[in-house]
Amino acid sequence: MAKRYVRVQTSKGQIYYGLLQLNRSVIVLDAPPWLQGQPTDTQLDPDSYQLLAPCAPSKVVAVGKNYVKHAAEMESEVPKEPLIFLKPSTAVIPAETEIWYPPQTQRMDYEGELALIIGDRTIDCTPQQAQAKIWGYTIANDVTARDLQKRDNQWTRAKGFDTFCPLGPWIVRELTPGARLQTFVNDNPQPVQSASVEEMVFSPDRLVSYISQIMTLLPGDVVLTGTPAGIGPLQVGDRVRVEIEGIGYLTNTVIQRPVINSINVSETHKNN
Amino acid sequence: MAKRYVRVQTSKGQIYYGLLQLNRSVIVLDAPPWLQGQPTDTQLDPDSYQLLAPCAPSKVVAVGKNYVKHAAEMESEVPKEPLIFLKPSTAVIPAETEIWYPPQTQRMDYEGELALIIGDRTIDCTPQQAQAKIWGYTIANDVTARDLQKRDNQWTRAKGFDTFCPLGPWIVRELTPGARLQTFVNDNPQPVQSASVEEMVFSPDRLVSYISQIMTLLPGDVVLTGTPAGIGPLQVGDRVRVEIEGIGYLTNTVIQRPVINSINVSETHKNN
Repeated sequence: MAKRYVRVQTSKGQIYYGLLQLNRSVIVLDAPPWLQGQPTDTQLDPDSYQLLAPCAPSKVVAVGKNYVKHAAEMESEVPKEPLIFLKPSTAVIPAETEIWYPPQTQRMDYEGELALIIGDRTIDCTPQQAQAKIWGYTIANDVTARDLQKRDNQWTRAKGFDTFCPLGPWIVRELTPGARLQTFVNDNPQPVQSASVEEMVFSPDRLVSYISQIMTLLPGDVVLTGTPAGIGPLQVGDRVRVEIEGIGYLTNTVIQRPVINSINVSETHKNN
Repeated sequence: MAKRYVRVQTSKGQIYYGLLQLNRSVIVLDAPPWLQGQPTDTQLDPDSYQLLAPCAPSKVVAVGKNYVKHAAEMESEVPKEPLIFLKPSTAVIPAETEIWYPPQTQRMDYEGELALIIGDRTIDCTPQQAQAKIWGYTIANDVTARDLQKRDNQWTRAKGFDTFCPLGPWIVRELTPGARLQTFVNDNPQPVQSASVEEMVFSPDRLVSYISQIMTLLPGDVVLTGTPAGIGPLQVGDRVRVEIEGIGYLTNTVIQRPVINSINVSETHKNN
């Protein structure tokens, strides 16, 4: 089985990168694995940690309309160049946590996606050089307030709400050729999205090359590669699961965005 | 004179927050000032440090069309709600450094702006609460590839290139009421932009409140408050200076984006 790289927080609040074992214990690494982190003698029992998102990106660069059939369902054309946008790092949440349904939207959609983890400072690289810059792969859900996306024209609000970027549960080094990406909602055994990642218009290498000619990518940064056809709404109470063959699955539950007043939560929310 | 809060890098590569003295020496603080950093006994001589951007934001949230006359020159209406977008933190550069003119654009514009520095974790705050969350003020240039902004529709590429967010030179705690914002290009004594920051459609308090209902703002995050009328192009070799009364001025020079191959620069560029 492929090695599974995780990021965890212990019950004492310590954050580590680690290697997830088959028995769910975690071998702690002494640094992020893309910064040559090596295994230590510390091993965490399954009940002594919580999974975090598998990296802490300085930025999440995402790509629109990168599958032909999805561009068609959005009634638009496949762009001639990748269409990029940013999601704030505050939107990132781990597997098995809650997506907050904001009061500002009446239509919040899932978008299952393959995520690339950048291993190296990357600027102006060619597609040929890009492969060496992609350290690994994980799963993302590019949650989108569809009504606000149309209303604002700019996508930042629609895709930038807190919790709108579930990411994980872990990183693997290799992508299975032609891996199938599928999204499931609740107990429906039929996937709402199903495509091969090879159906992308612009491949991971071309995306990383394109982005690196605009903005420097840093170790641990994340590139979301676009969603295939089949987007649809989520409701409060729904469970959404994005699966990618050879990686695993990313499951999250939808709740109403809690009413949080910043005056009172600076302590309790510090480590989110 | 108002206290001027800076971030500096010493010749040995150490990065500090500090207080800039009138003789240009810097009193080192033991933490970012918004995290209650206190003065230490260490003082840096003027020739022993370089100014960095005055904070290292986890995100830069910017606002479009927030001055009536600028919306008009863009041939668009003032939006009913703030129109937000993100600039990547990799775009941030300090005063007196170089803006890179990218080969992908034929029209790169300055946009002088007032920048807000967030002092506190901020989520769902009201405009009344927002004032206490704004720790200070500095100057920004929201450099924009105007042709790409129109072509892409999404603004991320046009506003996200490396070096497209000059920020600084320092932070002050108070904003002079009605402070004038002016932008100058080269030796032209006539400003190309000139407006009072009170001409903003949405005030700093309302912007911070609006953004905090979407995404959590973190200490050191930056909010750009929009540019007034008078936008125009920069050419390679130009010097651009954005002034805000009561803060100071932010000057940068334009050069051609250098050809950088990421395979070779990971060492030399590590601290940029």
